[in-house]
Amino acid sequence: MHDEGNRPQSELRQDPTTRNWVIIAPQRGLRPTDLESHSQPTLSSATTSVVCPFCRGEEEETPPEVLRLNDSEGNWRLRVVPNRFAMLSEDGPPRRQISTEGFISMPGVGHHEVVIETPDHSGDLATGGEALVRDVLDVYRARYRALRAERAALIVIFRNHGRSAGTSLSHPHSQIVATPVVPIEVRHRFEVAQQHYDDMGTCLYSDILQRELADGRGIVLETRQFVAFQPFASAFPYETWLMPRLQQASFVSITDHQLDDMAGALRRVLVALRQLLDDPDYNYVIESAPPDQEDREYFVWHLRIAPRLGTPAGFELGSGMRVNPFPPEEAAAALREAVDG
Amino acid sequence: MHDEGNRPQSELRQDPTTRNWVIIAPQRGLRPTDLESHSQPTLSSATTSVVCPFCRGEEEETPPEVLRLNDSEGNWRLRVVPNRFAMLSEDGPPRRQISTEGFISMPGVGHHEVVIETPDHSGDLATGGEALVRDVLDVYRARYRALRAERAALIVIFRNHGRSAGTSLSHPHSQIVATPVVPIEVRHRFEVAQQHYDDMGTCLYSDILQRELADGRGIVLETRQFVAFQPFASAFPYETWLMPRLQQASFVSITDHQLDDMAGALRRVLVALRQLLDDPDYNYVIESAPPDQEDREYFVWHLRIAPRLGTPAGFELGSGMRVNPFPPEEAAAALREAVDG
Repeated sequence: MHDEGNRPQSELRQDPTTRNWVIIAPQRGLRPTDLESHSQPTLSSATTSVVCPFCRGEEEETPPEVLRLNDSEGNWRLRVVPNRFAMLSEDGPPRRQISTEGFISMPGVGHHEVVIETPDHSGDLATGGEALVRDVLDVYRARYRALRAERAALIVIFRNHGRSAGTSLSHPHSQIVATPVVPIEVRHRFEVAQQHYDDMGTCLYSDILQRELADGRGIVLETRQFVAFQPFASAFPYETWLMPRLQQASFVSITDHQLDDMAGALRRVLVALRQLLDDPDYNYVIESAPPDQEDREYFVWHLRIAPRLGTPAGFELGSGMRVNPFPPEEAAAALREAVDG
Repeated sequence: MHDEGNRPQSELRQDPTTRNWVIIAPQRGLRPTDLESHSQPTLSSATTSVVCPFCRGEEEETPPEVLRLNDSEGNWRLRVVPNRFAMLSEDGPPRRQISTEGFISMPGVGHHEVVIETPDHSGDLATGGEALVRDVLDVYRARYRALRAERAALIVIFRNHGRSAGTSLSHPHSQIVATPVVPIEVRHRFEVAQQHYDDMGTCLYSDILQRELADGRGIVLETRQFVAFQPFASAFPYETWLMPRLQQASFVSITDHQLDDMAGALRRVLVALRQLLDDPDYNYVIESAPPDQEDREYFVWHLRIAPRLGTPAGFELGSGMRVNPFPPEEAAAALREAVDG
């Protein structure tokens, strides 16, 4: 049997935004494996497409665009279209139906849009210029405003990069979903923040940012308007938050000045992740206050990046706890070095 | 543009155990893809091992066993050992530490065991006999009892089958983790069940079972003691619950008689899933009452099987809502046909 003497110990860390515990378990990263990578059959009847529906010349493959930016020659450089395979797309009120047996459901009311970020099929936010990232963020804000006006309960802006992050098409794109209800997890985060506000009279998220800045070990980069950091209780290796310094509950409130600053900061983080981790698959999501809670003084919106370097398994399914094999202070140190390095 | 006329609509269904909403979106299964399967670099420094530490003759590769079943020749047929790469392993009280900055943590107190189910490296619960499944369930109960006696806050028994389900070693095994806290998600499920009990005076989980039996479309199989069904608001395609008919809050209370019955039922479900979906990767977990709530009349433990046929992505990360592209009533009909088929 091998020597177990110098194996690092695990610890539990409380995520102050949910009060849930994350298990930081460095020794889990040392496990042996006898498995080769293999493809797994999936349920989908999807077929590998010959033409990419997001490329120039294939505009007929998508529903009509709802927003478009042109280049100097009058060709589109960014398009927003309804998702042809929308998870939510119906109009009308989110009226509950209760079956005889007591099952509760409602129609799939909402919106689901695709932001086709560039005509360059092989492009990426990390390899394009800062103007590309600025365009994408600007369009996020424009569509957020439009969907908010249509009374969405929550607007979720996210990006899936790479197959293991759930992408089905590799052409660079983001997605925006407007839901007819505020999900339980989002409600829970707001309740936790409200309790903190009741107890302390301060904004939990502003306090978290100050705490991370005071500690310093999780900080990835700082700009005038934003801080990128890996939270003390990160649920994933290299989980990185990009948060405004201002107490601002909703992404809809972001100013032009902040947008300029954020574009630079986001690009630097994505470039560093790409360099350090060899273009990892990742998800990012903008966690913003629901439209009916935009005036709250106890939340700060943020962009949360979650690289897909491990696989949640049965333990996570049963407990809802996450196991992170890579302490964020070590990951942040590596990423800090890679930023502009 | 393609005809969108006959595309199925999505709907939201409420999971009564969490009050969260699941999006049932059949059209999501029709998405095209331009991606080939590829392996994704992972953070792990793991190497493909030459010898399997769970095979006969390699007993020195694991810590000393805590339980063992022998065959008629005196060789082991099942072993339980502490996990060498335990996510939790420390003794002592789960004492909170608060840093100067306010970060809250505690030592990784708990247990993490591996159930090596058989010496047969290429075996599987679905291809072995019913006696194998009976052995495994019996050992789950024995270890559950032992860990309960050591004051675990929650005991999570789970099985990861296949690489995309998070397995690192293919030799058939299950895992058992004893945690020092009750996770927030588990607390939440209990609160929801308690509210139902306060309102209705009945057990939510027994009511769910009766509702599914009355409706019938989600039922996969019935035995004298157990029912296998796919819940109305299944979060995953082919998500299947195996639940005792008896109102029994904790797995620790399972009788020998129930155990016999459960072994047959579980094996039939796993065989059917394997045949129907070509040996899919899956997780299963036993969701049981925390030891300090075993006497509650408002919970029923159950084994929850979640095949890994899709990838949760940025939307799920940001909203906590799940998107299931395959309506459970259709999946259950297919699985019902495959059972003993």
